[in-house]
Amino acid sequence: MDRRQRETSLDDDEPAMVHVDTNGSGAVSFNSNGIDKDLEEEESPLDNIPAIFSKYGDFHTIDWQRDLARDRLRHKLITNKKRDWPLGLLGSAWDSGAGWLCVLMVGMAAGATAGVIDIGARWMSDLKNGICADRFWLDKEHCCWSDDKTLYKDDSCSAWTTWPEVFNIYEKSNLYYFLDFFFYVSWAMSMAGLAVVLVKVFAPYACGSGIPEIKCILSGFVIRGYLGKWTFIIKSVGLMLSTASGLSLGKEGPMVHLACCIGNIFSYLFPKYGMNEAKKREILSASAAAGVSVAFGAPIGGVMFSLEEASYYFPLKTMWRSFFCALVAGIILRIVNPFGSDQTSLFHIDYMMKWTFIELIPFALLGVWGGILGSIFIWANIKWRSYCKNSAFLGRHNINEVLVVTAVTAVISYFNPYMRKNTSALIKQLFDRCGPDDVTSDLCDYRNRTITTSKVDDNYHTGIFGDGVETAIWQLIFALICKLIFTVFTFGLKVPCGLFIPSLAMGAISGRLLGITMEALTTSLQASGGQSEWMSCQIGKDCVYPGLYAMVGAAAVLGGVTRMTVSLVVIMFELTGSLEFIVPTMVAVMFAKWVGDATHKQGVYEAHIQLNGYPFLNNKEEYPYSTVASQVMRPRRDEPELCVLTQDGMTLGEIEALLRDTDFNGYPVVVSRSSMYLTGFCTRRDLQLALHSARKTQPYIVTASVVFFTPTVPDATSVGGPAPLRLRKLVDLAPMTITDQMPMETIIDMFRKLGLRHVLVTRSGKVLGIITKKDILEFMRHQESGFPGSVANPNFN
Amino acid sequence: MDRRQRETSLDDDEPAMVHVDTNGSGAVSFNSNGIDKDLEEEESPLDNIPAIFSKYGDFHTIDWQRDLARDRLRHKLITNKKRDWPLGLLGSAWDSGAGWLCVLMVGMAAGATAGVIDIGARWMSDLKNGICADRFWLDKEHCCWSDDKTLYKDDSCSAWTTWPEVFNIYEKSNLYYFLDFFFYVSWAMSMAGLAVVLVKVFAPYACGSGIPEIKCILSGFVIRGYLGKWTFIIKSVGLMLSTASGLSLGKEGPMVHLACCIGNIFSYLFPKYGMNEAKKREILSASAAAGVSVAFGAPIGGVMFSLEEASYYFPLKTMWRSFFCALVAGIILRIVNPFGSDQTSLFHIDYMMKWTFIELIPFALLGVWGGILGSIFIWANIKWRSYCKNSAFLGRHNINEVLVVTAVTAVISYFNPYMRKNTSALIKQLFDRCGPDDVTSDLCDYRNRTITTSKVDDNYHTGIFGDGVETAIWQLIFALICKLIFTVFTFGLKVPCGLFIPSLAMGAISGRLLGITMEALTTSLQASGGQSEWMSCQIGKDCVYPGLYAMVGAAAVLGGVTRMTVSLVVIMFELTGSLEFIVPTMVAVMFAKWVGDATHKQGVYEAHIQLNGYPFLNNKEEYPYSTVASQVMRPRRDEPELCVLTQDGMTLGEIEALLRDTDFNGYPVVVSRSSMYLTGFCTRRDLQLALHSARKTQPYIVTASVVFFTPTVPDATSVGGPAPLRLRKLVDLAPMTITDQMPMETIIDMFRKLGLRHVLVTRSGKVLGIITKKDILEFMRHQESGFPGSVANPNFN
Repeated sequence: MDRRQRETSLDDDEPAMVHVDTNGSGAVSFNSNGIDKDLEEEESPLDNIPAIFSKYGDFHTIDWQRDLARDRLRHKLITNKKRDWPLGLLGSAWDSGAGWLCVLMVGMAAGATAGVIDIGARWMSDLKNGICADRFWLDKEHCCWSDDKTLYKDDSCSAWTTWPEVFNIYEKSNLYYFLDFFFYVSWAMSMAGLAVVLVKVFAPYACGSGIPEIKCILSGFVIRGYLGKWTFIIKSVGLMLSTASGLSLGKEGPMVHLACCIGNIFSYLFPKYGMNEAKKREILSASAAAGVSVAFGAPIGGVMFSLEEASYYFPLKTMWRSFFCALVAGIILRIVNPFGSDQTSLFHIDYMMKWTFIELIPFALLGVWGGILGSIFIWANIKWRSYCKNSAFLGRHNINEVLVVTAVTAVISYFNPYMRKNTSALIKQLFDRCGPDDVTSDLCDYRNRTITTSKVDDNYHTGIFGDGVETAIWQLIFALICKLIFTVFTFGLKVPCGLFIPSLAMGAISGRLLGITMEALTTSLQASGGQSEWMSCQIGKDCVYPGLYAMVGAAAVLGGVTRMTVSLVVIMFELTGSLEFIVPTMVAVMFAKWVGDATHKQGVYEAHIQLNGYPFLNNKEEYPYSTVASQVMRPRRDEPELCVLTQDGMTLGEIEALLRDTDFNGYPVVVSRSSMYLTGFCTRRDLQLALHSARKTQPYIVTASVVFFTPTVPDATSVGGPAPLRLRKLVDLAPMTITDQMPMETIIDMFRKLGLRHVLVTRSGKVLGIITKKDILEFMRHQESGFPGSVANPNFN
Repeated sequence: MDRRQRETSLDDDEPAMVHVDTNGSGAVSFNSNGIDKDLEEEESPLDNIPAIFSKYGDFHTIDWQRDLARDRLRHKLITNKKRDWPLGLLGSAWDSGAGWLCVLMVGMAAGATAGVIDIGARWMSDLKNGICADRFWLDKEHCCWSDDKTLYKDDSCSAWTTWPEVFNIYEKSNLYYFLDFFFYVSWAMSMAGLAVVLVKVFAPYACGSGIPEIKCILSGFVIRGYLGKWTFIIKSVGLMLSTASGLSLGKEGPMVHLACCIGNIFSYLFPKYGMNEAKKREILSASAAAGVSVAFGAPIGGVMFSLEEASYYFPLKTMWRSFFCALVAGIILRIVNPFGSDQTSLFHIDYMMKWTFIELIPFALLGVWGGILGSIFIWANIKWRSYCKNSAFLGRHNINEVLVVTAVTAVISYFNPYMRKNTSALIKQLFDRCGPDDVTSDLCDYRNRTITTSKVDDNYHTGIFGDGVETAIWQLIFALICKLIFTVFTFGLKVPCGLFIPSLAMGAISGRLLGITMEALTTSLQASGGQSEWMSCQIGKDCVYPGLYAMVGAAAVLGGVTRMTVSLVVIMFELTGSLEFIVPTMVAVMFAKWVGDATHKQGVYEAHIQLNGYPFLNNKEEYPYSTVASQVMRPRRDEPELCVLTQDGMTLGEIEALLRDTDFNGYPVVVSRSSMYLTGFCTRRDLQLALHSARKTQPYIVTASVVFFTPTVPDATSVGGPAPLRLRKLVDLAPMTITDQMPMETIIDMFRKLGLRHVLVTRSGKVLGIITKKDILEFMRHQESGFPGSVANPNFN
């Protein structure tokens, strides 16, 4: 056994504590002899419950097939009891309803959490600028509402006190501006600092967006504590703080993480889910849907996100439950009503936007731009993060890193109106049209507006720009560049931070800029008398809606960054509710995906998964390899032969030596070492426990005792020698096997679709080796980098 | 070999014409000796194309893994040529774009087809009542529009001539009514008769809804001609005729079939899809989405339908393409604009419906009712259809059956205003509220309307019923009962007929009835002075929207009949575009699904699949069996042993005898008959072709020649005897194997998720038997009926 094999082979294969052997009757076959009984009593506090619950070590991969088999077994036990009226029937009904009850609770909790976080983040965000004099617990908007009931439009009101005003400086002097600036930056830095300290001290897992980890967890990876209550509490508080600090981050990704924490916590109320990792992931999938649902106010989009991006195993029953969960969360959020309006969508568009077919060209261009921008972002972010990962200095100074990034962001943002305001509010402004009452904003400084303001018209302005628009354009370009740079450095900080909102903001700015350009172009075309046929719009009416371009651009950049497709379009559709709008989004997202995939193969989540080295087997990609099992399996040609157990030839001492000398997590059981014909598979943990227990409780078992994995054991007296040890019950008689000529694509398909942890490779019935999930991931990495690695060339045949 | 094994084992296992042996290099290993070359030249017209295309016999199951492997191989060949500038690059680009181009074309064609059918069916439907005097090609609505531009509301206009008027009978005498009735019934019967004759003569597959068959086809079943051009043409025409004939059927289900026909036809333009059954199903999945998209004007609903109901293998790439396809189809339909309005949705609701939480109780009741009604319908329909299937008399009189059902339907429908009108129009009327201009309909005959007609109010009427409402209620109850009975006898007739519209109609009637009842209840509660707190609505305003109840009821009954969940809710959501409305639908659909599953386990499509005996492995159900592979595999314990080929011990004559005596479609190749260690698998067809070819072209091959399936063949001269025959290349070295103790649930999972056709069962490396898809289906049928069948009890331990 060389060192490499030792490290990779099967070492993610930590066995469940108790082993299920599905024999013909389907019942659990325990306790047929004293050894197993002792073993169970010693180790499991649940010794009166059959072994239908799974337990895995930290950073291990779960075995979907075995967990689902356990659940079927549990289900059978309950179904059998169904006849015992009334308790059995009640138990059965409870079992059927548990899933629905659980997702109902998750949905309600997710909706409430989202509402609280929205309100909290908004209040803290406004705290940077001032405070409500009478009622400090109100944010600026509500403060002004409670002050007077008139329309509130980005203006100050008397009840709202800025920080200089708190210190009785009302005159807009240099001191006033300095104090304002000082408080803005200080608040930002204290909030970000508090967030990072909370994360570092209480819950290190609460940082980042969490979506890469959620993807891994849903694919069957176990990260203990990642979805725990501490992570939930700290991430909730930290998310409010970091959002409010004005860093270039969003709260939508972390909301998915929070929803999954809720799902995990509630699942422990239902042992069916809490004690079975595979079943728990059904609840987590539904939770992820609820998270997106509350983040964007898009329940169907949430389900599609869970299906497309997050989930791995997503049967239709789970989809239906996810939908329910997402909907409940959305309703609760609407009842909490954090925005004080009837809208649950983050950016509700309440006006009709029309477009002509010729505009699909700029939309496609936006898509291309989105793909390029997304790839630049991912590339730069990954470069910076892997530099940080390897830098000892930065590794020690996480808190300072956050403070520096916050300070730079706050200082620069303070002077740009578009960067200073809440990013969601910025996106909303960019999506909106210039209405008749938009008089304060540079963006809507169109000339000749006095002509038409008398009548409130849907198509309102003339499209001829004032000076303000030019200022706005330069400010937006500056904001775009800064946003990109800030986000590159922000994503991956040790604070809760999501990517959706910054991506949407970058896209919205790009789109709005293109929209304004298109508008100017159209206006000048019309002004030059050439009433162009193809635009089919009349002079005096604006046929170009810059807000639509902003939406399309937002979708394009988000598509370029995350490589989402269907779910993104559905989310954008739910924001508007108009079928009309799907086509431009779809064109942009399509181009963003194509261009993005061409320039940087991985989306940001996949890139971070790879950066962190999680064992994630992407189920979206196709692998056109020309390799067969024998080239990937362990042991390789130049390695020592496979460690196996023989079914009736080994003594207790030999097996103990094997366990001591190797650290594989499981061993194939064969008929004899010379023939190598496969009988079954035995996990390390089961073996260890059984041998230990036998040594302790059965004094006649000695080192020279022969261990039998066969159904029948020769009579000890007739054979002579010490009493044999029977361990038949430890053997999994149905290991997944493949032949050595099986193409790797098929094997990868099996791993992905069946959720395997390992397969045994055989030829003509003989065991040749083993392939684990890690072997496959390593092989895929080698293939991608074009490096054949240590994959030997086969010359069987 | 007993007869049963012969029939079931492997008989759906028709091999592909050319065999792909993926060896270490991943390249196709053909033509390495003369035999294979001859074989290929003799049989395949594509001998310069590598064997990357699949071919299956009629009513056979495809092998997904092998087909996808073929496609990967094809893809590799193209990728390798990529360097040959410019042709290779162009080929590669074409290959990447082919899928998108194909679904684009499918979407456009599906949209156009739907438009034409909508227009045609509407014209023919109006033909039953009369004809447009000046322009016979116009339907009633367009005829009256072209006559005068005033609002047209179910009234007659001068340009529209009823049939009695054609014969110059204008007075509304008995003769007038008799002629009107006579023409109505005659037209109905001639249209239905023409439809059934067309179907019987030209395309027998054009009958029915097609969705059960589409489900089977998408799950990997091959039905030649089911998606052919004749089926398409006849089904299009027949669909217009049968819809127009007034039979209780819809055109939405057949629209899915038509879209799949289009997908199939267009896929032949792209050999990548047309020649590979597994890849073709990606296009068909997208087509199914487009079909639903045009049927309901719901693109996202279409994708969800394809995902939930129709498709089997639905990777994300296909989903994204399906979405594109559905969207294109929807846009084209909007351009064709068959309804003369801007709406693509079938039943567009343009008013806000509000509901209170207490109303969830009646919505849940509607769900329960929907489940019960659905189960009654399925049960009765299946009973009648299986009676028809077994009745020789009815089997011979298909045409008469259609004529009788049509006549009865037409005669009864003529006298009921709700049954007489187009079913879609009826549903629309039931969904609508009673607006101020609804003066002709009994349904909206509310008292005190004169008080409020002066102001056009959203909440318009008083809720106190006039006599008309009572009449309407009785007519609706009658219509509901008749619809149910008619639909039971109609679904399954030899004309194109769908189920969606009749189900929706039954549900809408039930819902509207409940809605009116609720309205009366509320009004009387309010009138009695008890201004109930919980209804939170004011006197004079109607808080109950009967139209909302109709929508919820429609969703509930459709849910009860088809057992759709997510897709149904999404479709209903897209009809209204309001999130507000999702919750009631979801509650109703949830209850309909639960109650439906409790009363009649299978949905209507599954029931019809079972009735027709298609080999469909449902991927929605879970199977809690306690069985292992050895109990299901063939041969059984009481049957003769497995037929195998030995890798080096059999003569040509022996193999020929084996092929003659048995009719399995494949044989395991083993090391020796005594050891039974598995080497590979060889299909019958490959063997037959190879032996035939060898006999013809190699005169030194005689009956006593030993056939070698081994990589090395002993030198003929050293061994003595006739020259050996080398058939190594025929052997599939990577057959899927399982052990005899594998639980059946895992095996079913493998079949479903990997799309297998058979697995070989081994123990300790020895081949014990084989399990085919048919064995599994037979086993599942036995388990469901509680009959253990011939499944032997294992005592392997």
